[in-house]
Amino acid sequence: MMTEAPKKITIFDSTLRDGAQAEGISFSVKDKLDIVKILDKMGIDIIEAGNPGSNPKDIAFFEELKTLSLSHASLCAFGSTCHPRKKAEDDANLQAILKTKTKYAAIFGKASVFHVESILNTTREENLRMIEDSCRFLSQNGKKVIFDAEHFFDGYELDSAYALATLKAAEKGGAVAVSLCDTNGGTLPSKIQTIVAHVCSSLQIEVAIHAHNDSGLGVAASLAGVEGGAVQVQGTFLGYGERCGNANLATVIADLQIKMGYRCLPEDKIKKLTPSAIKIAEISNYALTGREPYIGKSAFAHKGGMHIDAVLKAPHSFEHIDPQSVGNQRRILMSEVAGRGTIIQLIHEIDPGIEKHSKEATRVMDRIKELEYQGYQFEGAESSVKLLIRKELGKFKPFFEIEDFKTIGEKPVEGRALSASAIVKVSVEGKEAINAAEGDGPVNALDKALRAALEGFYPSIKSLRLTDFKVRVIDQGATASKVRVLIESSDGDDIWSNVGVSTDVIEASLIALVDAIEYKLLKDMEKKIKDYYL
Amino acid sequence: MMTEAPKKITIFDSTLRDGAQAEGISFSVKDKLDIVKILDKMGIDIIEAGNPGSNPKDIAFFEELKTLSLSHASLCAFGSTCHPRKKAEDDANLQAILKTKTKYAAIFGKASVFHVESILNTTREENLRMIEDSCRFLSQNGKKVIFDAEHFFDGYELDSAYALATLKAAEKGGAVAVSLCDTNGGTLPSKIQTIVAHVCSSLQIEVAIHAHNDSGLGVAASLAGVEGGAVQVQGTFLGYGERCGNANLATVIADLQIKMGYRCLPEDKIKKLTPSAIKIAEISNYALTGREPYIGKSAFAHKGGMHIDAVLKAPHSFEHIDPQSVGNQRRILMSEVAGRGTIIQLIHEIDPGIEKHSKEATRVMDRIKELEYQGYQFEGAESSVKLLIRKELGKFKPFFEIEDFKTIGEKPVEGRALSASAIVKVSVEGKEAINAAEGDGPVNALDKALRAALEGFYPSIKSLRLTDFKVRVIDQGATASKVRVLIESSDGDDIWSNVGVSTDVIEASLIALVDAIEYKLLKDMEKKIKDYYL
Repeated sequence: MMTEAPKKITIFDSTLRDGAQAEGISFSVKDKLDIVKILDKMGIDIIEAGNPGSNPKDIAFFEELKTLSLSHASLCAFGSTCHPRKKAEDDANLQAILKTKTKYAAIFGKASVFHVESILNTTREENLRMIEDSCRFLSQNGKKVIFDAEHFFDGYELDSAYALATLKAAEKGGAVAVSLCDTNGGTLPSKIQTIVAHVCSSLQIEVAIHAHNDSGLGVAASLAGVEGGAVQVQGTFLGYGERCGNANLATVIADLQIKMGYRCLPEDKIKKLTPSAIKIAEISNYALTGREPYIGKSAFAHKGGMHIDAVLKAPHSFEHIDPQSVGNQRRILMSEVAGRGTIIQLIHEIDPGIEKHSKEATRVMDRIKELEYQGYQFEGAESSVKLLIRKELGKFKPFFEIEDFKTIGEKPVEGRALSASAIVKVSVEGKEAINAAEGDGPVNALDKALRAALEGFYPSIKSLRLTDFKVRVIDQGATASKVRVLIESSDGDDIWSNVGVSTDVIEASLIALVDAIEYKLLKDMEKKIKDYYL
Repeated sequence: MMTEAPKKITIFDSTLRDGAQAEGISFSVKDKLDIVKILDKMGIDIIEAGNPGSNPKDIAFFEELKTLSLSHASLCAFGSTCHPRKKAEDDANLQAILKTKTKYAAIFGKASVFHVESILNTTREENLRMIEDSCRFLSQNGKKVIFDAEHFFDGYELDSAYALATLKAAEKGGAVAVSLCDTNGGTLPSKIQTIVAHVCSSLQIEVAIHAHNDSGLGVAASLAGVEGGAVQVQGTFLGYGERCGNANLATVIADLQIKMGYRCLPEDKIKKLTPSAIKIAEISNYALTGREPYIGKSAFAHKGGMHIDAVLKAPHSFEHIDPQSVGNQRRILMSEVAGRGTIIQLIHEIDPGIEKHSKEATRVMDRIKELEYQGYQFEGAESSVKLLIRKELGKFKPFFEIEDFKTIGEKPVEGRALSASAIVKVSVEGKEAINAAEGDGPVNALDKALRAALEGFYPSIKSLRLTDFKVRVIDQGATASKVRVLIESSDGDDIWSNVGVSTDVIEASLIALVDAIEYKLLKDMEKKIKDYYL
């Protein structure tokens, strides 16, 4: 028996462009580079990087992109068609697009007679000329051009012949694809499917669907577009975007690939969906609600007693897919069994003799629950959990003690770069050492002083560096609210994360910094023992 | 010309029952009563109040409900069919339902052969008997019975004849309606529409659709059910519910009533959608993301410059409906992509004589762009923008200067609650004042010391308090990365927000704190002038 290969749907990610239109989102250049890398590793086909002509930050980003080598994805620059009564080749924005090294260029233009006449204030003919010329200018200069037909579905309702004519102008100008945008997010999926099917039968080039979520139907509209014949879906991760957001690619990809038999990502990459989405949310500093389909923390969480019993008997009784297929996991809530399986695995790394329902395992579980109640969150901070387990099991001897510290912050003065200093006194096996450092803020100064004080005892600390530092306010309200600090450290061989919680950002940071150093020293010691015995 | 009256769709709200299954939701008796009143006032038809036999809290709630008089809604009690080989009249849960004064009873039962045989461990025939007897017992005792056919769509796939037989058993037992549940949330809308249509042609009683959001299609599935012939939609407000939640009624109602021509709520009640949804979210203590269709804070927020210009020309150019029709409103956001149009409106509040393309307006725009490049983000910090405009236009005289400050952080010591102290020296028109304060961390100490130093000059500062404090790391990497601090202040009359950016969290906080105080003092002065002249 032969099985047909699944039909490929190109995934076009616009998190960095349309996603950045979301209220509350503002990506730094580094944020954007990190997101590009995540999307590439996940197997996304086209990444829309932004508008190269719009502002200094985007110009800097496109320069950085030139040095990046990607394994799968192609990049796309965004802009608009040239202006009325202006030549495409004279358009500064189109010229800026040409200067980027991206394979694709997406340019938006008007597809609705209302927008042509009342917003752009030009004629129907001139608008068609602008679309065709702009596409031709870019495609003749080596770009693969995608024409974003803004307000396509609303325009189709007003004057379907004209809406189609704008697409044909793009096709004639050499565009490789047209994207049908439901810009206002108000079109129902059934209508989208019918219109997309009509467009597909009228054009030779590829058709993409670009949906928004204003009617709560962004995902459904994208699927309807594909059912109508679209071979490309445009959306954003987590559905970030203006107003109610764009179609959420994390959901669209899973629906198309797992439930509808299309291929969006390479087969082995779909497991990256959950961790990649979580990373993108972290970078965006956009809290996940947990209820996100497929990738949310609660997506496979079971609360009702009967449901839990049934799920333990037969997972598919209350799960529409296997959570692991998208890199997520089942969670059993409000139950003694919660998390014990995971924790026991970590316990066994340290002491394989401890049983699941032993007093020791219970003590570790209780301690974790208590800390979580205080605001700790151990997801992504496994090394803090490992240290905690060692402490609870009595298998941890601190490498050092902090005897005392002081941080001094001062009003920044012209000509002095650093505004804070710190003094730290540590002791190691009865021997004391004190050291000081200046820094950019008290946490930075404290970090430097602590390492300086410890380096005499533990020279390997020199290779340790902080690669990430995140602060999240957990109980909001006033400056004395609780903060959670999550730091990421690296020594060149490994990367690990640690967490600290306090009402004082300095104390929270110090808890995490101490954990990070302890973990490094423990790791070094274990390696030494291994090298010696093996 | 006669227009046909819109078809009525009954709205069945399960926020208090299925919604309470959501991770993190736990309603008190008062919460539930408050939600019932909101739903009733909004014009919801049936409110599922919970399971009267399940726990003391629910029993107390049903007692309270007896004294409540509702203007529109009918109440419904929830339970399950009787047990295998047990009589319906002997079932404690069914008896508890009878004791409530609710007009409706919703009882769930198995519609899938897999669940009948492998989870319930009974025979197909016995399951049909349980359904029929349970419906008959309740309906003969005066309840209008809705049969919730659990896993109906999955069951239909396995054995459509048996799934239909369960519905017919309910019909035979006197149920007034059957609810087709996509319990696992995995069925695609097109399939739902086909199956609902088949069911509708096979039964005499009403058919309801009950969808979940595991595939991101909860709303689409509900609409598909209605298109297939269902005359009742079951869902929850804001989509609360187990895993990824239920169909969000706030969206379903607006889609059906505004876009599809059905009638869900009385015509004059649809405006209550936004305020009601916000109240329910507050009672549930579930933060809204703002991106919720129709009712979210960002649902009609415009950020892109060209979009803003177009919306100001013609609202429907970027809005799929009139925000006021659902009780929401348009918002114009400040941002790096926001056009001159927004900024000029704020400039005109201060100096109506400045033109859009004047040197002054350009200078303000440039300054905003420069700060945004540094990491500032002015969305939600309009008062910082107003101060900035005044400064650029030379229309701002600082109320005070910070001459110097020092913060001292120390290792927390047992018995001393506060770990930091600060000294601040300010000057006001040549007069200096110095003050100090202890705090929970250096930012908190600095905030207190600064107010203390200023209160002698400006007593109105006493009414000022911080209501929110957010820290966001913007260039991640190491403790010296840049942070953006966003604070919210209130003086009882107004609430405003300010922003500060620096590599030092203390400095960033101080920039925002100073802005907040300056704004307060400016506001007080303007009010004084107004009171004097008007």
